[in-house]
Parts: sequence; structure tokens; C-alpha cells
Amino acid sequence: MPLNFVTCGESHGKYLAAIVEGVPAGLEVDLVRINQELARRQQGYGRGARQKIEKDQVEILGGVIAGKSTGAPIGFLLVNKDYKIEKMPELFRPRPGHADLAGSLKYDQGIRAVLERASARETAMRVAVGALARLFLKEFEIEVISHVIRVGPVSVRAEHLSFADVKKRAAHSEMNCAYPEAEKEMIRAIDNAIEKRDSLGGQYEVRVAGVPIGLGSHVHWTRKLDGRLARALMGKQSVKAVEFGLGTRSGEVYGSEAHDEIFYAKEKGYYRKTDRSGGVEGGMSNGADLLVRVTMKPISTLRRPLASVNMKTKKPEKAEYERSDISVVPAGSVIGEAIVAYEVMDAFLEKFGGDSLKEIHRNYEGYLQQVRES
Amino acid sequence: MPLNFVTCGESHGKYLAAIVEGVPAGLEVDLVRINQELARRQQGYGRGARQKIEKDQVEILGGVIAGKSTGAPIGFLLVNKDYKIEKMPELFRPRPGHADLAGSLKYDQGIRAVLERASARETAMRVAVGALARLFLKEFEIEVISHVIRVGPVSVRAEHLSFADVKKRAAHSEMNCAYPEAEKEMIRAIDNAIEKRDSLGGQYEVRVAGVPIGLGSHVHWTRKLDGRLARALMGKQSVKAVEFGLGTRSGEVYGSEAHDEIFYAKEKGYYRKTDRSGGVEGGMSNGADLLVRVTMKPISTLRRPLASVNMKTKKPEKAEYERSDISVVPAGSVIGEAIVAYEVMDAFLEKFGGDSLKEIHRNYEGYLQQVRES
Amino acid sequence: MPLNFVTCGESHGKYLAAIVEGVPAGLEVDLVRINQELARRQQGYGRGARQKIEKDQVEILGGVIAGKSTGAPIGFLLVNKDYKIEKMPELFRPRPGHADLAGSLKYDQGIRAVLERASARETAMRVAVGALARLFLKEFEIEVISHVIRVGPVSVRAEHLSFADVKKRAAHSEMNCAYPEAEKEMIRAIDNAIEKRDSLGGQYEVRVAGVPIGLGSHVHWTRKLDGRLARALMGKQSVKAVEFGLGTRSGEVYGSEAHDEIFYAKEKGYYRKTDRSGGVEGGMSNGADLLVRVTMKPISTLRRPLASVNMKTKKPEKAEYERSDISVVPAGSVIGEAIVAYEVMDAFLEKFGGDSLKEIHRNYEGYLQQVRES
Amino acid sequence: MPLNFVTCGESHGKYLAAIVEGVPAGLEVDLVRINQELARRQQGYGRGARQKIEKDQVEILGGVIAGKSTGAPIGFLLVNKDYKIEKMPELFRPRPGHADLAGSLKYDQGIRAVLERASARETAMRVAVGALARLFLKEFEIEVISHVIRVGPVSVRAEHLSFADVKKRAAHSEMNCAYPEAEKEMIRAIDNAIEKRDSLGGQYEVRVAGVPIGLGSHVHWTRKLDGRLARALMGKQSVKAVEFGLGTRSGEVYGSEAHDEIFYAKEKGYYRKTDRSGGVEGGMSNGADLLVRVTMKPISTLRRPLASVNMKTKKPEKAEYERSDISVVPAGSVIGEAIVAYEVMDAFLEKFGGDSLKEIHRNYEGYLQQVRES
Repeated sequence: MPLNFVTCGESHGKYLAAIVEGVPAGLEVDLVRINQELARRQQGYGRGARQKIEKDQVEILGGVIAGKSTGAPIGFLLVNKDYKIEKMPELFRPRPGHADLAGSLKYDQGIRAVLERASARETAMRVAVGALARLFLKEFEIEVISHVIRVGPVSVRAEHLSFADVKKRAAHSEMNCAYPEAEKEMIRAIDNAIEKRDSLGGQYEVRVAGVPIGLGSHVHWTRKLDGRLARALMGKQSVKAVEFGLGTRSGEVYGSEAHDEIFYAKEKGYYRKTDRSGGVEGGMSNGADLLVRVTMKPISTLRRPLASVNMKTKKPEKAEYERSDISVVPAGSVIGEAIVAYEVMDAFLEKFGGDSLKEIHRNYEGYLQQVRES
Repeated sequence: MPLNFVTCGESHGKYLAAIVEGVPAGLEVDLVRINQELARRQQGYGRGARQKIEKDQVEILGGVIAGKSTGAPIGFLLVNKDYKIEKMPELFRPRPGHADLAGSLKYDQGIRAVLERASARETAMRVAVGALARLFLKEFEIEVISHVIRVGPVSVRAEHLSFADVKKRAAHSEMNCAYPEAEKEMIRAIDNAIEKRDSLGGQYEVRVAGVPIGLGSHVHWTRKLDGRLARALMGKQSVKAVEFGLGTRSGEVYGSEAHDEIFYAKEKGYYRKTDRSGGVEGGMSNGADLLVRVTMKPISTLRRPLASVNMKTKKPEKAEYERSDISVVPAGSVIGEAIVAYEVMDAFLEKFGGDSLKEIHRNYEGYLQQVRES
Repeated sequence: MPLNFVTCGESHGKYLAAIVEGVPAGLEVDLVRINQELARRQQGYGRGARQKIEKDQVEILGGVIAGKSTGAPIGFLLVNKDYKIEKMPELFRPRPGHADLAGSLKYDQGIRAVLERASARETAMRVAVGALARLFLKEFEIEVISHVIRVGPVSVRAEHLSFADVKKRAAHSEMNCAYPEAEKEMIRAIDNAIEKRDSLGGQYEVRVAGVPIGLGSHVHWTRKLDGRLARALMGKQSVKAVEFGLGTRSGEVYGSEAHDEIFYAKEKGYYRKTDRSGGVEGGMSNGADLLVRVTMKPISTLRRPLASVNMKTKKPEKAEYERSDISVVPAGSVIGEAIVAYEVMDAFLEKFGGDSLKEIHRNYEGYLQQVRES
Repeated sequence: MPLNFVTCGESHGKYLAAIVEGVPAGLEVDLVRINQELARRQQGYGRGARQKIEKDQVEILGGVIAGKSTGAPIGFLLVNKDYKIEKMPELFRPRPGHADLAGSLKYDQGIRAVLERASARETAMRVAVGALARLFLKEFEIEVISHVIRVGPVSVRAEHLSFADVKKRAAHSEMNCAYPEAEKEMIRAIDNAIEKRDSLGGQYEVRVAGVPIGLGSHVHWTRKLDGRLARALMGKQSVKAVEFGLGTRSGEVYGSEAHDEIFYAKEKGYYRKTDRSGGVEGGMSNGADLLVRVTMKPISTLRRPLASVNMKTKKPEKAEYERSDISVVPAGSVIGEAIVAYEVMDAFLEKFGGDSLKEIHRNYEGYLQQVRES
């Protein structure tokens, strides 16, 4: 794959950093926009104190000269104001649902060294990388949005909402939700969870408009666009399900209700009136909006902890509690957007090649015309 | 990742082949067992004529001497008895839901060249590779099974079924279903679909027992076990959703209902009484059974075709019909097992290293003891 | 990297096979040309009996319909007429210089299982894959040639020979040598080695004409064109040195004698009059011919074997002797061409993207014009 | 491959950074030792002013808690005191031998954006990463050293020098040379080059002691240890040739003079008395010292510049001159050590697996014993 990134840093460490390799030259790297995405990740009702205290701001480590990418790896640095890793205590009672136990046994180390990395704090870097991908995609009029469709018991249907609807309606919602009434109920559900000293998960949808036909491939499983997106999304903390289009409902309906009929119009070429496939057929984008639905389990750090075992004594004890959020689905949806943006950019570069924006634009326009003339 | 495989071949081509790179030396490569898995893939009510005509049998291309793997790449060859690719007609009316349209535009070629590769026929090779992985995993007492839990409107609940239950009950079912009554209903649903000249999808569950704590990793998203499994499964034809454990239900429940409490007993170490997480926490196996649920959409080739466009004339026409199955969820579940087996083997080798079975056994036993003593 | 291939098969096994993933659609796959390259690999004075007995011919396993690539993985199958692996005896006295000892210890198996795979017989597949790459490169007027410049004590200087000279003069030489007199001496040197029951290595040069400016990259070490070529060439049996342009002589001269001055002419753009850099600067092709020099050590199977140890008894004994060639530098040069062709194709696809020949041509022409106008 | 690293940063940018992914847990990350290696890189007669002004010191970005690695990606940050990238002028006359021309055309940008990344300044990060690898290898008693064997016309023979000799003798040499007289001549050669306003390259040798039998593999070209080392070394600025053991001389001698006979002694197992192969046979380490020889071309920035072309006017002009070193072979040798250390660690982890030092030690000891008993 043309793009490649690594992140490092711990939840309470001094720094978080990321390096992305493979970004072409000539892209305007708008740091303000990138930091806006980081701010979006920190929003949402149900967050703990930390998100309110510190505003994430990244600095550029390299790969950008005079505001433009140079083709060299681009680095981001985020300084944790809340830096105190040396003072954080060791923990002994792994939290069910967290990496604590497996990470400690696998790496032969204490729980602290595991949770500091397993923490969702790392996703700040994934958002920064994804924000860069968004800037790239914007050049090609590809846009990524998301909205929250479930928080615990409260859910909304979204099939009938157009891309424009979702975009407009979710933008001003604290819960990144397209329905004000549902938003209120979601907040109430979170309040309930706070009261019960429990936590809640939910679901969000990511949509991408403007994707050309033919990203990904049917020829080999490692190239399939849906597989790549599924891996990246499932590889995010708390995600337990990834669905495209009708998703799990695809298993219930008849074939005649599961696929998107094909139409053609001179000015816009082949197109669809439905998006049951989520914009992917045979592992390739089909020109419709990408539509992925992601389910997040509830936060595993509970104020009323579950049963666990003290790893020193092997005696049953309640799991550890560390300061935590209660529900983070809106933040999850922002991270989901970032992940999807990155994967789409990767598949885009794979198809169109090119080392400078000028070259990629030329390649892209040529292909669009070829498709129109096919 | 230590393992790597590629397949080639077309649905009606002369051959299908696969080469797997990274299999350690000293594994007994039991071709009978491998061919049994291929036979399982061809079963299930609702298949078209082809599955009944030809029995897939692979031959070994290399990497095995005197019945044992040598560490060299292992190749499989399957000769298609139904070889007639040169006589197959070109098609012009892409099937909604299939790779036809996107593949034809992307690769600037006719639909025939696309569908011959996009066809699920290729999964015969994934099953062969997966069968090899099963032989490997068996050496370490890791076992992979599956069962069908939905065909169209007919579904069963399976949370309470133990691994042993599922294994015993699904083994003799034509539908790979653990419930005889549900099986009958599934068959009836398929008969309905046949009558309507329509098709049906469904859902299956893959479970893996015997997985040690600590496959995959929390440290970097590309190493997460659930992400890797999700990619591989979503990269299979027709799959539209992948879920772990509670899956989409994780978004509905409270944290206290979503996680698996941790227990300890001297003889078996840390263990769980529930499997809501599907055996993966923080991107790592947690010692419980892996439990993945996969949703397949209905077959996109319909006897009563959907609206499409003739790519030559650009006029609306009905989509093409090619001889096809009606419902393939049981076959899908066998392929799903193969895919999961392969990914688990890959993660296993990544963790334990080693070039010969002897070395891997030693490394593995050492780790198990280390975990017991932690 | 866009391309990816795996081979399997043993020296005396029934089959050799290869699968290449990432070849774009629309390439005419001329099997006659591919088999010609395989025949070239079998030529050269100093070969053992085997090369004379069997003529390698590959068959296509998939990825080609009606003579054209489809974007799907392309497989090659070669049936070994000399199939007798089950009858080959186990060996116990590892040959110095061969994989025998390390391979046997690493993989915990006998020497036979090692040498069957370590054998240069596997390079037949690398030649087939490289021949496919040549067909691709030819579409873009990129041509790969080679010539032998040393066999043991006999060497020729080649700096002053143009690409056209080398091509014309080496084509008809049994030794793939540009100088008839040197060729005779080389043959005499081989005769001497035969008489001494010894073996000889040598050196060859691979040149590539028509490479555009800008394959590879300076931005990250894994993308450097020279590094990729070095890896692929050093990863071939018997290779002990890889040099670009002046190569080891670069360490001896002054900077003013080591670099290629830059010139410009309207009709051909930037160009060089010398090729001291071997066509690579900063990890990128610079528009001059690629020029790589490869040194092969002598064959390690000697008729008058070296000291070794019997692995069963641990007693000193002479190494095993298996039927073998005496000197294979011309064959090596053909394999070297194939390897270079493959790597150049890979770097080409990485830069220009595209899924069909039509698209790649368009992208390529656009870039050439951009460079001309820069 | 288990390890993976990316670097970012520009020569005159504010930062250089690197992130390494795949380092196991439990390694003591001694920052003092890492910074010592960075200091070694800055030494050597013939350096420009910059190396004397600023002392490189890295800080850790993540992956280390309480001085120990945690299995998470490890990041390094180096702040450039000499930060002035915004004030650096654009350049128009590409330097022959440098990435300037190809990088500018490929990425459609000015020369400044190219040279800032192509600069050898980036190797500071490769040294930091390599220093980490050395710390790991030291745990397993694997040691990497180097010495300079040529600067321009002055060369020394080194075949007869033992590892211990080289280590002791080169340690205190400003030129990292094992011979005091040769060192003086090398310095004189550099003085000559300074006087001529020219530059000089040279050669160095990297040796690794303590490598177990069986790193790398013969089974597939991408796994070959020599290929991996060759790629990494050739992917360093200025390198034009990479040789193992006899290297180019392998092409001149008879087979009986080119290979290393095999011996056995109860206490040390199989061993060699010579190292003509450079410690690699069949793509695997054979238990002898690794011995790689690297040739560096002279610095391409000349005080008496070569012919070039002004890219704005297309008129012939002399190439640009930027402040530069005259000869950097000793620094090159330190970087070469780092690169080799990294690749050996990667191959080591690939073979032995494991996530903690404890586990890797156990796996390693088990293998050593298995080899002893084979």
C-alpha cells in the first residue's frame, strides 16, 4: 500500500507522535484544519475531565516546507500537558474488556505499561493523520462525514438521510447526531449510566461522497477496499462490529432487496439510486457513497468495577478504576472518519499513482474521462 | 506478517492455484484432510449444478517432501474439470451487487474478465490454504469450527451453545446448523427463494478453541488480531458485516453487561465464564474462544434479474444471468473457518517464531508455562 | 510495492510454479517470448547434463484470458521432466558455500529438503516472472540487457561500450559476452576448471535503457531504487557483490571524477554524457541507463569436494557431490536481467499507478510531458 | 518483517524524528549509549563546520517506561539547533550525483525541498534506531563493529585481521581505521582533496560477531539475509557497492578457494576457519562473523562545482554549492554499523519470535541447544 504510518506515545507520557510515509508533494498542509479535527475528537457529552482540561494541538515534525508537503514523511508531535507517567501507580487488577490482562502476560510486564499504550489517547494521532488525508481528499472533492446513530438503548434510523442532510444536521450536535430529539435522549442515557456508575457504547456511521468507481480490487483479498476499511476500523479501541450498507440486515433480505440496481445518464455516467451495498461491490468502490457502520462497546473502565483477580495474590478482587470517560461514541465517530479518510487516500494513491498533486490530478482526470467514455 | 499467500485462476479457467509462503518445516501435510475441507465447501442445500458435478481435489506443487513441509513455499493446484473459459460469452449487462461494473471500468476490460476472477470459485484455494493452517493449529490443540445461524428470515440464537455443542450438532447438518428444526426451516426458505427466482444470504459464526492468551497486540493497529480477522473475512465475496462476541449488541448494553469478568484457578490460570468480547480484548486473544460472526448478502446473480444497463448501448436492460447457486451460507461458513484458521496461524507464528515444529512447540510450551507462572 | 510474487517447487520435484500479483490488465502475455527467456537461462558453456536434456516450458495457470492479462494474479507452471525427488538419497555431508548446513540446522531437517529448494533451479520461475515484466516494459520502450564481463581470471572492460553495442555483440555469444576473443578465453578457463574438477564464478552487467527520470525515491530508504535492486540481486543464489556504475571504483576517485555532469537540450531534456552513477542518484533513476554489476561466486558443488563433516557421525569427511554445472555466469546474467526487469516494473507501477495499459500509458505520457516542460 | 521504522525531518528543519515498531518489551533503553552512537556519527576527519557546532542528542518520544521498552513503538526526537529552513534559499542548479534533479522533476518542486530530505542528516535517525538494535543484540552477545579500509587512493587489506583486532585498533582512530599509518595517509588524502576543492569517498567493512546459524532463509528471496542487508546498505546515501566476504573477488577465484570448509568440535559445534562467504550461505547466517564491505562515492557537493544546468533558464551553469563535508567515510561506517544492527535484529526476531526479553532469551537458548544437539 502506498501509505504507511506509525504512532508512538503513551496516555500519560510526555509526547504523542506520528509519522506518515507516502504523502505526495504539493499538498497544502493546513495545521489549523488538522487541529480542528483534534478538537472535534475531544468533544461529546460523557467525556471525563481530561478532555476539558487540555486542548490537543499538533506541531509538524517534518515533511512540510513553506506549508506544503514535499513527498517526504510527515511527522506530527503532540505534547501532553497532563504529563505524569512516572508518578502513575502500578496496577494489579486487570479490567475486563481492556488490554490489561493479555497485554501484561504477553509482554511480561505490569499493567501500567500496557494501558498507557492501549489507551484511546493514541487515537489523537490517528485523527491527525486522518485530518491530513482529508486535506488530500478535499483536493479531489472527496468528503468524509459521520454521525452517531446509537448510544446504548437510544438509536435512530438513517437510511433515508442524504449525505447533505447528515452533514448539515450532525455538524452542530454535541453528540454528532442528526436528530435533536434523539440527541437529548442520548444525553439522558449517558446521565443514567453516570448515575449507575456504568458506561455506554453505541454506533456511528461514516459516509464518504465523491469516491470514484474502482478503488480497491476484486483480484486479491488483500486489495479489497472493504477488507482494508474493516481492518482499520476494527483495529480501533472498543470497536466490535463493522458493517457495510445493509450490513447485518443483508443476511435477512432477498437478493432482489439487497443489491443496488444500475442506471446510466449521459452527464453522470453509471449511478445508483440506493446504497444497500455501502458503496462497495466486489471489493471495489462503485461510485455510490461509502457507508460504513461501526459498533463500539461501552468503555471498560467502570466506576463500579467488575470482578477481576489481583495478579500478585491471585485472589479475586474488583478491577482497577482509572479516571475515565463514560461514553465516547461521538469521539469514536470522529476517529472513524479519520480512519476511513486515511484508507480511502491509500486506495486512491494505489490506483492513481503520482508523486505531486499536479501529476495525481492529471492521472485522476484522465481516468474520470476514460470512465465517462466507457 | 510471517505468512503470505497468493492465489490465481479463473472460475472457468483450466486451473486454480495457490502458494503459501512461511509455513514452518516438519508439518505433516495430510492431503486427504485438505481435500475433505474442499469437499465441505461444496456442500450445502441451495447450490447450483456445478458443485454436484465436480469434486475438487488439490495436488501439491511444492514445499512438501515425503509428506512433510520443508519450510519452503507450499503450492496447491486444482484442475477445473469444467474448463471452458474460451467458450464463455462476453457479457454486457453488469449484475448489481457484483464486481462486474466497477471491475470492467477500472481495468478497462469486458465483464467476463472480471467475473471469472471475482467468482467465489477462487475461495476453493482459500479453503485449501486454510486447511493447511488447520493442520498446523491442530498440532497445538487449536480447533476451528463454524455453524450457520441465519439463512434469510430464519435465525437461531447461539450464545448459550458451548464449543462442544456446536461442533457435535453442526457436523452432521447439511446446512452446518446446530438445530435440526431450524435447518429444516432454512431449507424451506431456500426453496421459497428458488420459487421466487431470488436468492438468500445469512449469517454464520466461527469459533476457535485453544487459542493462547496474547495473539495479536494492542501496540499498533496493524497488529490487532480482530482487525486482521475482520480484514480477511470482509475480503471474502459477499461478506457485509463482521462482528466479535456481542458484536452490534455491544452498542446497546451497559458496560457492566458487555465485558467478561476475570477469574483465576490454579490449574487453568486466568479464565472467563462468558465470551461477550469474542475472545479478543485490546486487539489480543484473551484465552477465551474466538467468536466471530459474519453476515453474507444474498448471491447477486438472480434468475429474475435486476435493472442494469447494457454497457455497449447504454440502454437500460436486465442484468445478466449466469448459472449460479441460490444460497451458499454453509459453504461460506466453511470458507470462514479457513480464513480464520489462516489468520490465527499467522498471529501464532508472529508470536512464537520458529522454523520447525520442534522449535515452535518448545517456544510455545515455554510461553504457556511462563503465563501459568505469572 | 505494487507487485508481489511467490514461487514454489523443488529442484527434482514434479513442478515449479510462480504467482505474480499486481500485473495490470491489457498486457499481451506472449508465452513464446517467455519461454525464449527460459531457454536463454539454460544456455552457456559450462553447464551440466541437465540443461541439455530438458527444455523448460511454462504454462499459464491463470490471470490471462484470450492472451491478455486481466489484472488478476498471473500464474506459471513448469513441469519438471526430470522428476525424481522421492528417489533422491538423503545427504549428510554439507557442501561449503551452500545452504546445506545452515538450512538443515535452522529447519531441523535433512540436507535433501534444503538443497532441493536452495537450488538455482528455482530461478527458472524468476526468469518467467521477469520475462513477463520485460513484456510490460517493452510497452514503454524500456529494454533490459546483460553481458558477461568476467569468468574467473578472464575479464573485459565495458565502460566504453554503448547499450546498442552490448546488445548486438552479446546476443550471439554462447557466453553472453560482447568480445569474441574474451569469450574464447572464458571457455578455456571453464575447460581448465573442468579439468581441475573445480568451478568458476564471474561477473555480469545488467543495463536498462529507456528508464524515465524519477523511479524510486530519496524520501525513505525502503523506496530507493538502488536498494530494491540490490536486495533482489543479492537475493539470488551465488551473488556476493552488487555495484552501481563505477561501483567499488567510486571509493577510489575524486568527486570530480565520480559524478555525471548535467546537460540540457530542448528536444531531449536533461541528459548525461557519462554513466558513473549507474543511472541512480539519490535512490532515483536519473534518466541515464541503469547499470548494475553483479559478482557471482563459483558453484559450491565441487567434483573434488572440500572438507566437511558427516552430520550423523560428526566425523570429518569430504562434502557431498551432486550432479552440477561448472560455471553458470551466462545463465546468471539472464536471471539478473529478469530480476532487474521485475524491479523496474514494480517501481514503474508505483510511480504511475493505473490498472490497465491504457491508463498507464496515459499517466506515463502525461508525466513525460510534465518533465519536458519543467 | 517484525521490525519497521520510519523517520522524518529535514536537514535544516526544526526536528528529526524516528519511530520504530516491533521492539519487544523489557529492553533497557540506555539513552546515554544511543547518544554515544550519535556522537560517533559526527566524528571523523574531513567533516564540515556543522558537525563541530552541534552535538546530536535524542530524546525519547514514547515506548519506554521507567527506562524499559514496553513493546510499544519507540520514538526518538532530535532538535536541530541549526534550525533555519525558512531562511534557506531556493536553488536552481542541480548537483551531479545528488537527488536534486530527479527529485525536483519527480515531485514537481524546487531543489530545496529535495535536498533537505535527501541530505545525510537523516542518517542521524538511522543511527539512533541502530543504536537501539545494538542494545538488543548485546543481550544476546551479538556485537557489531566497523572499520574504514579505504579513503580515495589509500586502502588497507583487512582479511587477516580478527574481529578482536579490528575492534581494538579502530576504536581510537579518528578515521575508524585499524592501521595508524594508513590513517595518517587517509588524512593526507583528505587534505589533498580539500586543497583541490574536491571530495573523496572510500570503503568500510562491517563485521558482526555472535550471530547464530540460521538467520534469514534460503526458501524465498525476500527472506534472504544478504539481500536484506544489501538493500538497507545500498539504501543509504552515497553507497554504490555492497559486497559479502570475498565480494567482487569471488568472481576471480576457483570454487576451491571461494568457500569456507566446515569443521566440528564438540564444545562449539560446527565452525569455519575462514570467512570468504562473509558469514552468509544460501541467504542464511552460517555462524561465522558477518562481513560486509560497503563502497561510498565521494560527496557530490563540490567546492569546485561540476557542469550543470540552471533549471529556470535551461542555460549551462556550474552546480550549486552548499556548505558540506569533504569526506565522510568514518561517519559512513558508523551508519553502516547501525543499519546492519537493525537488519540483524529484524532477522533475529523473525526467527525467534517473542514479545519480552525473557521469552526471547528462552526461545534463543532452546534453539542454541537444539543446534548443538543436531
